[in-house]
Amino acid sequence: MISESDILNCFQHLVESKKDSLVLVGSGDDAVVIKSQKNNLVHSLDISKIHTHFPDNSLPEDIAYRSVAVALSDLAAMGAKPSFITVGLTSNKKDINWYEQFTTGIESIINEYQIKLVGGDVTFGEINVCVNVFGYIDENILIRSNAKPGDNIYITGQLGRGRQGLIDWNNDKKSSFVQNYFRPKINFKKSKYISRLASSCIDISDGLIKDLGSICNSSKVGAKIFYEDIPITNDIDDLSYGDDYELCFTSPKIYKEKFNEEDFFLIGEITPGKNIELIKDNILVSLKKNGWDSFD
Amino acid sequence: MISESDILNCFQHLVESKKDSLVLVGSGDDAVVIKSQKNNLVHSLDISKIHTHFPDNSLPEDIAYRSVAVALSDLAAMGAKPSFITVGLTSNKKDINWYEQFTTGIESIINEYQIKLVGGDVTFGEINVCVNVFGYIDENILIRSNAKPGDNIYITGQLGRGRQGLIDWNNDKKSSFVQNYFRPKINFKKSKYISRLASSCIDISDGLIKDLGSICNSSKVGAKIFYEDIPITNDIDDLSYGDDYELCFTSPKIYKEKFNEEDFFLIGEITPGKNIELIKDNILVSLKKNGWDSFD
Repeated sequence: MISESDILNCFQHLVESKKDSLVLVGSGDDAVVIKSQKNNLVHSLDISKIHTHFPDNSLPEDIAYRSVAVALSDLAAMGAKPSFITVGLTSNKKDINWYEQFTTGIESIINEYQIKLVGGDVTFGEINVCVNVFGYIDENILIRSNAKPGDNIYITGQLGRGRQGLIDWNNDKKSSFVQNYFRPKINFKKSKYISRLASSCIDISDGLIKDLGSICNSSKVGAKIFYEDIPITNDIDDLSYGDDYELCFTSPKIYKEKFNEEDFFLIGEITPGKNIELIKDNILVSLKKNGWDSFD
Repeated sequence: MISESDILNCFQHLVESKKDSLVLVGSGDDAVVIKSQKNNLVHSLDISKIHTHFPDNSLPEDIAYRSVAVALSDLAAMGAKPSFITVGLTSNKKDINWYEQFTTGIESIINEYQIKLVGGDVTFGEINVCVNVFGYIDENILIRSNAKPGDNIYITGQLGRGRQGLIDWNNDKKSSFVQNYFRPKINFKKSKYISRLASSCIDISDGLIKDLGSICNSSKVGAKIFYEDIPITNDIDDLSYGDDYELCFTSPKIYKEKFNEEDFFLIGEITPGKNIELIKDNILVSLKKNGWDSFD
């Protein structure tokens, strides 16, 4: 039987114990001490659970990577620059290789985004990864509640790739979509650019319709979106599936020329109404009242 | 079936959404934005899991209270003042009352310590509470690695009450010890006082012997402690059981008169050796080599 310290040893090389510009006291003490910065701290927490958030047969390195990526996505949605993370890992695996592979996934993503793992906890039980992400605000804070009627609505990428990736994985089919599902890329460069120009922003984790609904709810507005303008992978269900971790944001029309068509997809506009209208072939195909939680 | 938003609604009154001196953007967005302070930020994370960290028949309000308390204990061990928390709750309960009672426990402890709940996440599964605590350093940072030979060793309270509380709970016996187990008090007043005078500090979560062992390992020293000087509840096993969340700290002899006997129990001294010696009736009863992880 492997012990807690065997598992913690797998993480040791990722947790800087020496003092540096950010971490004053690191691994090996009761808590980590982080040098306070002039910029405001942004924090979010995401739980990723087996069965619910990833399939039972997921690879440990993919579980690790994906759990951190989906948490980082919340920082991008706020216009924050990621800085450090902590990981609370619950796992019932008894093979130390599983933990080593898990830490490989952690290492891969912290290297990719140039962030630090500063602490965590491990315990035995059904696989459950609680990831805490921390970042700082360089430019403006992006919130959900500031969309105004007349603002344009944009998304940053194609929807439905994550959904197709999960289908391919479940059918033992190798495809680039599988990578989209397990290793979504969080676009902090676009997030930073948007932060200067957007009136509201959210990450598309629960599906465009629900997440745009959250912007509308928070901003007390409606929206009209055009099916033909939305880049999708398969069909209309890509609009409500989620797992893409692209950004959906609104911006005053005055900034329209700031958004090139290759990186930012203009899909509609904010209305003074209380509904989200989806237009397809010039016909209104869906009209949902706000209060979106009840629809999912 | 209750929905995620039903559960989140239970927490809503505890999460301040309006801006204040600490929280710039609160509940309802992707992440919380915390005003950066001049003092350094201290952060710790603790997972509390059913079966492992509390009994299956624990009350939801006790699970909530205890999960936060044991996480706060890490801040006290660092000499930090608690400021805010986030809670990642996994639960398989389908009765909304369970979540309401859980939030009652959260409310009780955040009011007691005058801290804020600033965010969190909920998901469905085996009960697992991932608590993130954040605080700021007012005085000195208390670390584990600075104990010196000749320093006195103190603890802040009686050991074994938590252990007896769990026994009483399992035997359906009402006693004040049950309260000690489910609602341990974290003494930030003593922690602050100690922070000016201590050379090292740890909270006694895993048992005095193991936790003092961590100080010795980190500081590369040994220790000699006297059984008759250690306030216990039952027997010698109270030294290795844990669940008390008192502090164990070391301090140079020069400060001895600063520690009154009612609040601080002098139990021994740091030695230049590599072992922890436990003396009982003037006889050496236990001599453990460092490398404590292998003993528990």
